[in-house]
Amino acid sequence: MIRHGYAIGAAFALSVTPSAAPSALAFAAAEANDEVGACNTLFTCEQERAENFVAEMMAAGIIVPVPKDPGGGYTHEQHKRNYKAMYLAGQLYRITGETRYRDYLRDMLLAYADLYPTLGEHPARSNQYSGRLFWQVLNDAVWMVHAIQAYEQVRGELNAADRQKIDDQLFRKAAYFLSVESQATFDRIHNHATWATAGVGMTGYVLGDKDLIQRALLGSAKDGKTGFLRQTELLFSPDGYYSEGPYYQRYAMMPFMLFAEAIDRNEPGRKIFKHRGGILLKALRTTIDLTYDGYFLPFNDAIKEKSLDTEELYHGVAIAYAQTGDPSLLSIAKAQGKTILTPSGKAVSDALAAGKAKAFPFASRLLRDGPDGDQGAVAILREGSGPKHSALIVKNASQGMGHGHFDKLNWQFYDNGQEVITDYGAARFLNIEAKQGGRYLPENESWAKQSVAHNVLVVDGKSHFDGALKTAEKHAPQQLFYQGEKGTQISSAKIDSAYPGVSMVRTMAMLQIPGLEYPVVLDVLQVRGDNTHQYDLPLHYQGHIMQIGFETRSHIAARPVLGAGSGYQHIWVDAQAIPKEGQAFVTWKLNDRFYTWRMAEAGGTEILLGESGANDPDFNLRREPMIMPGAADKRTASLSQCSNHMECSTMPPN
Amino acid sequence: MIRHGYAIGAAFALSVTPSAAPSALAFAAAEANDEVGACNTLFTCEQERAENFVAEMMAAGIIVPVPKDPGGGYTHEQHKRNYKAMYLAGQLYRITGETRYRDYLRDMLLAYADLYPTLGEHPARSNQYSGRLFWQVLNDAVWMVHAIQAYEQVRGELNAADRQKIDDQLFRKAAYFLSVESQATFDRIHNHATWATAGVGMTGYVLGDKDLIQRALLGSAKDGKTGFLRQTELLFSPDGYYSEGPYYQRYAMMPFMLFAEAIDRNEPGRKIFKHRGGILLKALRTTIDLTYDGYFLPFNDAIKEKSLDTEELYHGVAIAYAQTGDPSLLSIAKAQGKTILTPSGKAVSDALAAGKAKAFPFASRLLRDGPDGDQGAVAILREGSGPKHSALIVKNASQGMGHGHFDKLNWQFYDNGQEVITDYGAARFLNIEAKQGGRYLPENESWAKQSVAHNVLVVDGKSHFDGALKTAEKHAPQQLFYQGEKGTQISSAKIDSAYPGVSMVRTMAMLQIPGLEYPVVLDVLQVRGDNTHQYDLPLHYQGHIMQIGFETRSHIAARPVLGAGSGYQHIWVDAQAIPKEGQAFVTWKLNDRFYTWRMAEAGGTEILLGESGANDPDFNLRREPMIMPGAADKRTASLSQCSNHMECSTMPPN
Repeated sequence: MIRHGYAIGAAFALSVTPSAAPSALAFAAAEANDEVGACNTLFTCEQERAENFVAEMMAAGIIVPVPKDPGGGYTHEQHKRNYKAMYLAGQLYRITGETRYRDYLRDMLLAYADLYPTLGEHPARSNQYSGRLFWQVLNDAVWMVHAIQAYEQVRGELNAADRQKIDDQLFRKAAYFLSVESQATFDRIHNHATWATAGVGMTGYVLGDKDLIQRALLGSAKDGKTGFLRQTELLFSPDGYYSEGPYYQRYAMMPFMLFAEAIDRNEPGRKIFKHRGGILLKALRTTIDLTYDGYFLPFNDAIKEKSLDTEELYHGVAIAYAQTGDPSLLSIAKAQGKTILTPSGKAVSDALAAGKAKAFPFASRLLRDGPDGDQGAVAILREGSGPKHSALIVKNASQGMGHGHFDKLNWQFYDNGQEVITDYGAARFLNIEAKQGGRYLPENESWAKQSVAHNVLVVDGKSHFDGALKTAEKHAPQQLFYQGEKGTQISSAKIDSAYPGVSMVRTMAMLQIPGLEYPVVLDVLQVRGDNTHQYDLPLHYQGHIMQIGFETRSHIAARPVLGAGSGYQHIWVDAQAIPKEGQAFVTWKLNDRFYTWRMAEAGGTEILLGESGANDPDFNLRREPMIMPGAADKRTASLSQCSNHMECSTMPPN
Repeated sequence: MIRHGYAIGAAFALSVTPSAAPSALAFAAAEANDEVGACNTLFTCEQERAENFVAEMMAAGIIVPVPKDPGGGYTHEQHKRNYKAMYLAGQLYRITGETRYRDYLRDMLLAYADLYPTLGEHPARSNQYSGRLFWQVLNDAVWMVHAIQAYEQVRGELNAADRQKIDDQLFRKAAYFLSVESQATFDRIHNHATWATAGVGMTGYVLGDKDLIQRALLGSAKDGKTGFLRQTELLFSPDGYYSEGPYYQRYAMMPFMLFAEAIDRNEPGRKIFKHRGGILLKALRTTIDLTYDGYFLPFNDAIKEKSLDTEELYHGVAIAYAQTGDPSLLSIAKAQGKTILTPSGKAVSDALAAGKAKAFPFASRLLRDGPDGDQGAVAILREGSGPKHSALIVKNASQGMGHGHFDKLNWQFYDNGQEVITDYGAARFLNIEAKQGGRYLPENESWAKQSVAHNVLVVDGKSHFDGALKTAEKHAPQQLFYQGEKGTQISSAKIDSAYPGVSMVRTMAMLQIPGLEYPVVLDVLQVRGDNTHQYDLPLHYQGHIMQIGFETRSHIAARPVLGAGSGYQHIWVDAQAIPKEGQAFVTWKLNDRFYTWRMAEAGGTEILLGESGANDPDFNLRREPMIMPGAADKRTASLSQCSNHMECSTMPPN
């Protein structure tokens, strides 16, 4: 075409292909595609969904593959689908009496009974806690909790040969694997052990095997130093707070409630729901308290998308309602729009249909941590009501075991239905095989757990306890003061062990100021050090910067990385400045609201504006903005004493 | 406390204060706070909202401040509140006959009649198009369109003195300002002129002033070369596409429809709604077609939050329904949940209450651009239905005047209710005073309009037409082919004027492939150049990277800026790589779905992974990821011929 010069032809052929991602919870993903028709109660809709799902599974035939894949992979997900199908088929058989459900369930259990004895360690195991059917023993326990509930519905109607085969080749072998071969897990005081003891104990009730029941309740040594009962005593604080944090509390509640319900049914004399002052029912309510707008507070290792609308809580809410008749639980079930197919679920559904629901009384609460309530606390301060209320969360809790973060005296702020002052949660893409099989990513250690990834004081560029878990587990903050009355809500706590020779007292308040439409959050942090130190006080937020009160030095030619370790290597630096008097503020916008962060005078303090995501070649991190007062160059002792006063900033009228 | 070393005390007192942000549309912000009670039709709810708003305004008294502030500032917003209050009070008076509405309106108009003659150029003007009441003449025209509709309801009942004062001191002076003193605006073929002619023309009808009517309809020279009628002929294509793009089409439809409705009422013989084959009603429907899930396609200068649920469209939908009785418009009104207080709005409300609504038939469409339909086109290809359908948008349109972007043969892709392959829209924070008074930001020129900020071919690191508006307005792409049949949808277009000596043909297809759950988008770009050139083909997307098919070279120590101009200065470079054969793909996740971009073999092409937001010291830009094949070092002629084939990539089964 072109006569002069020479022609370069280039053609791009690009394609963009959507494909369905696995949901964080396989159940939800499967059910989301099940349109339900003419049902009109929670229970009948649930039944219709279950019938659709089981019909699909039955049509596909019994598929029990040899285990091969890690989380998110084919065999992993197929075994999950199978235990869901078995569980639901069992409930449907109980409800409808249709023998096809019983026969399907029997055939699948027999297939598992053929497979199970042939299995050794899982080929995709990543540590010593390998499962048989799944890459980690935890999933095997979850499988068992579901399968045994299914088996319970049909065992009495099987012929002796089938029953014996399923009893001996499947459930006894699986119980032996969980409680003997995996004793290290079984005897922990930990949610993995809760799943394992629940599976083994429920199997004991179904098979009439007292040995299994005893091991489950009292630990493998049957001395009560471990096992389910001890877990209820050590894993929850007197206020029903679970030491690992809300995300794992949600997860742990399911085996706690399911096994407790089985204990109550089989051994009502144990009064398990009254054990330790009714701790399990208290913990269930606390689980609900640990949410904002339905989403769990994401501190410690947590997937931020997790909400009350989750399988584990359908069980928990239904069982707790059946025990208590508390009408405020019905409003939670209503928001979930789901329940379970057991008699407890039927009770919830009937009560909801009868209009008995009352609003759940979300309120300010101090949740003490530790079995004796003396290992710090989580303060939840709520102002206003409804899904857009303001909530100040202060985390003065203990480390929370291996899923804990190094974030002593951390805080978050919610408002207008959004997380405004944020917690990163975990660096993990649950069930996504391309992201290391859905496991915790290396950046969970190098960023998400580090102090600088939180809204906490960081001293000398190192994380609290220098990031050492064993040290961290020995110390907890001390809650000094708490006041949850609307208008003037305050939490104050202290810790002097996060850094040698450094003591910090942090007082957080949420105040209603006459003439201001929204509450003000006040953060007074008092630090005493035995020597000169580098102090940084990162603040992580969500929103787009609208106004900066000071002139900044921006990094134009290239964007530098802040540091080399303790999470600093993951921070890009956008700009730095030492604000003049009265200028230390930043205003950002999130949805239809402005938020102004303002720092009282601290002559010479440098403020850094940055973003997470540096040193992340695999794009494993979300990129989120932060503000960090400190001393960005040398960061030594540049923070001067400043007065304990508050200033409020509002934008000009619009 | 500490005995050894010296103590450093540091205390931070930080406060975080939320404050209400002005909504993009002041009306919506005000009304959002108006809870409505026992109303049960669109019209009665609207009336209740209006009564609440006007009652608040009446309680505050007549406040007509001397103009001072730019957009978002106090006097700006007060004059907006005033015209809204006047408009609504006029309608309420017509509906209820309550004289307090008439008197309030009269008093406010008299206050304006006192103020108006005293005004000169607005103190916050930023260019030659200054208004009197507002910083730009456009807002004065909008004020007039509202105020005259209010005056129409009460003029006949005022005493002669008041009427004369308001006629002469306010409306005639304002009409003189708009049509004579601001003649340059008035006689443009542009939406600002549509507002001005509507205000002046409607004033002509109310005052019985034929001169004003003639000027409005035929332009200030009354020769029909400009003016409202000519605007309907030149601003819309034969398919009802407005050359500035969807965002301004939405805005322009309001004065077009309002004035047309007034013309039809006062001079039915003109058959204005049949003028040029019913272009205005056609354009109203096309406005609705230019949305995905209710949101306007954001190409050219556009605020991305803008949806069908917007004041301008309440008017347009109601007037169009009154003209046509088309029941599919009712479903739009239903989705809006709002209507207007005129007889047209009443007709919509009554028809909706009678259950007459039908779904709006969103379908694939080719919208030709240009008054004669020969200046390129916008292809809207839709696959599936409902709010989560897939839509491929190909913009082969003309420049679209000053709000146009340099993005020839650009495309976007929507799926699952989300914008997946994105268009940045405008760099502007509407009505936010801290962001340059809500005006377009400098980054709108330096980034948002530049070619590299779009999904288009960029040659030699320069924008199309080297970013020169006048040159760009002379050329448009040529639509070569269009097929909108489901399953195999195709658009092909060509332009050879964007760069001297470079011709490009881009064929975009959305294909349903048997065995794949979702459609595949195919992009075949054929380029012929007369010499060696640097070719870059940016792709802007939304989501988090899950998998990269190739080894990358990541920038660890610092994040470099890509270039020095034409938008390249705003790109941070995360990583670069020259993929091996078969590896040129990137998979990301957006909500619960994966998307894989895959490039056919192009030996030696370097792929760059980057993000917007460099060289942005005022944090005016959003930070959004991009993929850019090209030659990142020298970028000269490294793109080789590649075959026109498609590969599909899906994630492993979950």
